[in-house]
Amino acid sequence: MSSSGMPPGNTRRSEPDVDTIVGGILGGDRLMLSRAITLIESQKPEHQQKAHEVLDRCLKHKTDSIRIGITGSPGAGKSTFIEALGEIIIRSGLSLAVLAIDPSSRQTRGSILGDKARMEKLSGRKEAFIRPTASSGHLGGLSPKTHETIVLCEAAGYDVIIVETVGVGQSEVEVDTMVDFILLLMLPGSGDELQGIKRGIMEIADAIAITKSDGAQEGIAALSKTEFEAALRMLPAKYPFWHRQVFLTSALTEKGITEVWENISDFIREIRNKGMFEEKRREQLKSLLYRVLEEMLKKEFFTHPEVTRLKEDVEHQVLSAELSPFSGAETLMKAFTRLR
Amino acid sequence: MSSSGMPPGNTRRSEPDVDTIVGGILGGDRLMLSRAITLIESQKPEHQQKAHEVLDRCLKHKTDSIRIGITGSPGAGKSTFIEALGEIIIRSGLSLAVLAIDPSSRQTRGSILGDKARMEKLSGRKEAFIRPTASSGHLGGLSPKTHETIVLCEAAGYDVIIVETVGVGQSEVEVDTMVDFILLLMLPGSGDELQGIKRGIMEIADAIAITKSDGAQEGIAALSKTEFEAALRMLPAKYPFWHRQVFLTSALTEKGITEVWENISDFIREIRNKGMFEEKRREQLKSLLYRVLEEMLKKEFFTHPEVTRLKEDVEHQVLSAELSPFSGAETLMKAFTRLR
Repeated sequence: MSSSGMPPGNTRRSEPDVDTIVGGILGGDRLMLSRAITLIESQKPEHQQKAHEVLDRCLKHKTDSIRIGITGSPGAGKSTFIEALGEIIIRSGLSLAVLAIDPSSRQTRGSILGDKARMEKLSGRKEAFIRPTASSGHLGGLSPKTHETIVLCEAAGYDVIIVETVGVGQSEVEVDTMVDFILLLMLPGSGDELQGIKRGIMEIADAIAITKSDGAQEGIAALSKTEFEAALRMLPAKYPFWHRQVFLTSALTEKGITEVWENISDFIREIRNKGMFEEKRREQLKSLLYRVLEEMLKKEFFTHPEVTRLKEDVEHQVLSAELSPFSGAETLMKAFTRLR
Repeated sequence: MSSSGMPPGNTRRSEPDVDTIVGGILGGDRLMLSRAITLIESQKPEHQQKAHEVLDRCLKHKTDSIRIGITGSPGAGKSTFIEALGEIIIRSGLSLAVLAIDPSSRQTRGSILGDKARMEKLSGRKEAFIRPTASSGHLGGLSPKTHETIVLCEAAGYDVIIVETVGVGQSEVEVDTMVDFILLLMLPGSGDELQGIKRGIMEIADAIAITKSDGAQEGIAALSKTEFEAALRMLPAKYPFWHRQVFLTSALTEKGITEVWENISDFIREIRNKGMFEEKRREQLKSLLYRVLEEMLKKEFFTHPEVTRLKEDVEHQVLSAELSPFSGAETLMKAFTRLR
């Protein structure tokens, strides 16, 4: 409520225009990349138009990054594993973007302290860009705009993009439409847990890494490896040419981390040789098109003034059996198509 | 192509009007019920309007039937189990409608002969109505109109409605929004298969029946029972008050079938006592409202002349990277909202 009559928004730092944002992203300005991600995550209509323009221009400058989905239950050691893997990726001369789970929005089983220390080492590296995803209300730590964020990071020239998700099923199926390789992290001795986790996650994994396989845990980790290998044999092959492996790893001793990275690199080489890499990118674009379209369509529908006006009433009448779901749906559809 | 100039459709038997159809359904005319189901499954616009009226009127006459989803892999013995269970239901004085998987549309692992004999005994009973679902293109044997078919069968006064699905995951999640109780059928010795089936199915099961537990199979069936019980203990409870049981059954000797029916009846009594039955019905209506609405909205969109005209072109441009998925989606949305 400023007395000058100027809207309060104008007192903030001025918003950069599309040219400035895109130029910044392409030039490797990490702050500009961050601001662009914030822009695409915004719900405001004026931001959405601008976000759209930024995305369009960035898509023209996309590079062929390697996109990796890393998933696992809370407590499986995802962030320390990503730190260790990130070190090896950077050491091999590549740059890395991590779309991490926002510690403030995830259900923590660890301590607040543990959260604050997430990927501390990696955050300090100039070759790495770490972005917590705004996953509010979205399951599994995946943001509704994760795919768009990948597009921005590719324009910024990151060689490898890691998308972290919590293994709750739905998010993995979604992430599978965006990434090239999915790595499932499991704790030693979690073979019993296999009965508890959603099978779908194991079915879409391209490799499994058993974390924290060091010290007293080594014996039980080796046992788990055998169990997971047996379980993988019973699942249908995801790709006929790809043998899914189970790795014993430790972020502490760096055991197995290089092997995991080599496995991922082998996979990418394989699909490039087979011409499947470009095909995967096209499939990813197509699923993005229809996801965005469905999102726009539902938004158009549920923000339509007549629909908004009638919706609660119709739902109430359907629940009290005054109106059938068929007539209820038709009432809302008619309101939608009548005037716009 | 008739030379009289009369459309060929007019040479068929005349279509009954809404009053006749609804009167027939309420009066227990099975032929009329069948024709009404065919009507709601029809894609023709003039049929859809009529189907809508029939459904609206039928919904007013719905009875409180018991809705059971029965699921299991191909070969698990679903149809013989349903026959045996159906016998017991009818013997207890209740009538039964079965929305069965259409043998012509399912991927058979058995023989054609085995298919032809499906539910032969039950088909001959006047208390039973068996309807194969037209599941063309829809996964798991569930028709897109299964929920609507349930509404018609309830108006016809059937006390129990069984919906048969193949355990492929998606169909079970869908059927869970329509039925009161889900029974999972498993073969003896299929404990290993547990690694292979989608976990989601076991998570939504309210009981498991091990089929074909007779003769030489009894020993291995008992072993499987222990395995499934262990697996169920590791899954989160679906209802805090309900202990999920595993039954040893045989359609041949009728072993365990009565126990399964008593288990289902106990469950229905429990949720009625807790006031959850009505709540479930309301939730089912609500999910039907939004499913129908989404269906209508997508249909409205994808049959819109401008969208139809542009869609292929936009998809092509997106796949060849001439157009971004965001601009592509917007192009189609603009075409949709511009004129109608």
